[in-house]
Amino acid sequence: MRNRVFLDWNATTPLRAEARHAMLAAWDLVGNPSSVHAEGREARRLVEEARGALAAAVGALPRNVVFTSAGTEANAMALSPGLRRSSGGPVERLLVSALEHASVLAGGRFPADKIGLIPVLRSGVVDLDQLRGLLADGPPALVSVMAANNETGALQPVAEVARIVHEAGGLLHVDAIQALGKIPFEINIVGADLATFSAHKVGGPKGVGALVVAEGLSGLEPLLRGGGQELNRRAGTENVAGIAGFGAAVKVALQTLSEDAERMATLRIRLENGILGTAGATVFSDDVERLPNTVLFAAPGLKAETAVIGFDLEGIAVSSGSACSSGKVQPSHVLSAMGYDPAVAQGAVRLSLGWSTEPDDINRALEAWRKLGNTLLKG
Amino acid sequence: MRNRVFLDWNATTPLRAEARHAMLAAWDLVGNPSSVHAEGREARRLVEEARGALAAAVGALPRNVVFTSAGTEANAMALSPGLRRSSGGPVERLLVSALEHASVLAGGRFPADKIGLIPVLRSGVVDLDQLRGLLADGPPALVSVMAANNETGALQPVAEVARIVHEAGGLLHVDAIQALGKIPFEINIVGADLATFSAHKVGGPKGVGALVVAEGLSGLEPLLRGGGQELNRRAGTENVAGIAGFGAAVKVALQTLSEDAERMATLRIRLENGILGTAGATVFSDDVERLPNTVLFAAPGLKAETAVIGFDLEGIAVSSGSACSSGKVQPSHVLSAMGYDPAVAQGAVRLSLGWSTEPDDINRALEAWRKLGNTLLKG
Repeated sequence: MRNRVFLDWNATTPLRAEARHAMLAAWDLVGNPSSVHAEGREARRLVEEARGALAAAVGALPRNVVFTSAGTEANAMALSPGLRRSSGGPVERLLVSALEHASVLAGGRFPADKIGLIPVLRSGVVDLDQLRGLLADGPPALVSVMAANNETGALQPVAEVARIVHEAGGLLHVDAIQALGKIPFEINIVGADLATFSAHKVGGPKGVGALVVAEGLSGLEPLLRGGGQELNRRAGTENVAGIAGFGAAVKVALQTLSEDAERMATLRIRLENGILGTAGATVFSDDVERLPNTVLFAAPGLKAETAVIGFDLEGIAVSSGSACSSGKVQPSHVLSAMGYDPAVAQGAVRLSLGWSTEPDDINRALEAWRKLGNTLLKG
Repeated sequence: MRNRVFLDWNATTPLRAEARHAMLAAWDLVGNPSSVHAEGREARRLVEEARGALAAAVGALPRNVVFTSAGTEANAMALSPGLRRSSGGPVERLLVSALEHASVLAGGRFPADKIGLIPVLRSGVVDLDQLRGLLADGPPALVSVMAANNETGALQPVAEVARIVHEAGGLLHVDAIQALGKIPFEINIVGADLATFSAHKVGGPKGVGALVVAEGLSGLEPLLRGGGQELNRRAGTENVAGIAGFGAAVKVALQTLSEDAERMATLRIRLENGILGTAGATVFSDDVERLPNTVLFAAPGLKAETAVIGFDLEGIAVSSGSACSSGKVQPSHVLSAMGYDPAVAQGAVRLSLGWSTEPDDINRALEAWRKLGNTLLKG
C-alpha cells in the first residue's frame, strides 16, 4: 500500500494518532464498564470521558449522548415513532429527504406507509417549499435531513429546516455524519432534536457511532434491549476502546477544524479546476455551498465503475458515490433525486480529501485523470 | 491496577496478544470493506478471514456468520418471528429458559404475548419435561436455551433440547457466549438453528459479536437496514479491527481449549474447596456439569454488594451475577428461577477464572475470603 493516494475520505478516514493512543490505553483495561470493581470503574471512566468529549463537540449534554455500533444503528434508533417534546404530541410519520443515506431511507421503525420522501432541487439541496407542503398535509412528522450530502458534499439548510419543522409541530433528525469535523455543527445551534455521528469519518475507528438528542426529547425507545447500558437506552457491552478512540478523534478534529477545512478547500479547488479542464466535465452541486473536501464529477462517456478501477490501478483510491453497498457500483440515488438521468448517475466519480491530503496527492490524481481521460472518455 | 487479581472472566477477558496484533494490523488499513479500491479490498480480506476463523471454530459455513456489535445485538437479531427451515412453517412464538441473559429475556422481535418462559430445575438446568409440555401446547416455536449459564456455569443439555424442539417442529437458538473457548461447542454437532457469540469472552475486544445460523435456515430479517453489508443481513460499516481481533482470539482460544479448561478446572476446584470450608457456604449447581471456570456461591449472612466491594478493596475483582445492569447489584434472576428465595439470590458472589489465572491468584482470593468472612458473615 506504499505510495498510494487515498481520496476516499467520505468513506473512511485513517485512524488519528490520538485515537490510536486512546484505544491502546483502553485495551489494557480488562474491566466491563458495568462491573462495580476497580477494573470496571476504570473502563466506565473512559466511556464517560469520550461521552463528554463528543457532547462538548456537538453542543449537547453528556447524558443525551448514546453510543452505538455505527451511524447506521444510530439512524435506525433515531427514526422512531412516538418521539415527542414535552409540549406537543408524538410524531406519527416520517419525512426523509431523497438525498439521505440508505440507512435513513430504510425508515427506522416507521412502517413503509408512514414514510414520505422530500424532493430535492437540481442543485442537490432539499426543496424547502415542498417540505412546507408535505408538513402542512398531515399529522406531526419526524423529518430527517442530513447536514451535508456524502456524495456531492452539498450542505443542507438544516437550521432553516429546523424552524420550518418546529413551526409545523414536527421534530428534526439530522444525519451529521459527513459534517462532523469538516464544518461546524452543533445540535443546539442548528435546533435539531436528534443528530447522528460516526467515528470513522473523523479519524476514529470503524464500528462506532452515536445518537445525540436535544434536552427535553422523550419517547426514544431502545432498539437493543437487555442490560441497562447507556441509561437503559442501548443494551450491550460497550465497545470501550472504540468509544475512547471516537472521543479522542472528535476532540482533535474540532481543535483543528478551521485550519483543516481551509487546507482541504484550497486543494479541492485545485483538483476541481483540473478536472473541469476536461471537455464537458461537470462538478455536481457546484452552485451551492459544499463540504470543503468533496468533489463529485462526471464527464461525457465516463463510466464510474471503469474509472474507479482505472484510478485504483494508478494508485489512487476514489469512489463512485457511497461505499455502503458491499462492493457494488450502483447508480447514485442522490443524482437521480437531483433529476439527472441514470446514464449521468452511473458515470459520477467522487474524490474526497482529508486532513493529511498533500498537494502532491492532488498532482498525482490529476496526472492519473489526464492519463485515464484519454482511454476512458473515448468509448 | 498493579497486583490486582481478576476473577471476573465471565464478564470480560483481557485482550489476547494475538487479537491485539490483528487489531493493530487492521488499524493501519484505511479502507472501508465496501469500497472497491485496493484499500477497501484489503479491509474486506481481514473481515472475511475472521469470518472463516469463527465459522471453522463453531462448525458453520462462513456465509452463515453475521458479525454484530455484541452478543446483545446478535440475540436481538436471532429472536425473530418468521424464521423457518425449508421443511416446515415459520415459528410463531418464542420460548426462552428462565436462565437466559437479559438480552434474550427481552424477546427480540417477538411481541410480549408471544413469549413463554421455560422453567428451570433447582440444579440450574432447564426442565425438559416442562419444555416438552410447552411445545405440545401451541404453534411452532423458536426456543432459546443457552449453552452454559453465565452466573452458575451450569451446562444446559442443548443437544437434547435440539432433538426435542425439532421433533415438535420448532427451531432452536443457543446463546453460546459463555461456552465459546471454555467447552466444545459446534452448531452442527449440537443441532442448533442459530447460535450467538461474543468476542470479549474469549480474548477479543468488547463491542463485537456474531450470529451464526445453520445452513438452510431462512426468514432471518435484518435488524439494521441500509447498506448491503453482511450479505444484506446487517447494515452498517463493519468494526473491521474488532472483527479481526475476534477472529484471532477465537482461533487461539480453540487451539488451547482443552489445556486451558483443564488448568481452570483444577484451580477452580481448589478455590471451591476453600470456600466450602466456610460454615454454611453453598456452591450453586454443584451437582451438575458446569463450565470449568465458574463458581457461584453464597454463605449465611453474606450480602453480595458488600462482598464485591470487600473483595475489590482487597485487590480482587469478582462479581455478583452478571455485569450487564450498569453497575447495579441486583438479585440474580437465575437463582430466583432455580427456586432460591430473594435473600439467597441477593447474597450470591461469582468468581470466574481464565486462561491466565495463576495458582497464586487463587491463594490471594482465598486469603481475602478468610479475612472478609470474619466481618461479612457476622451481620
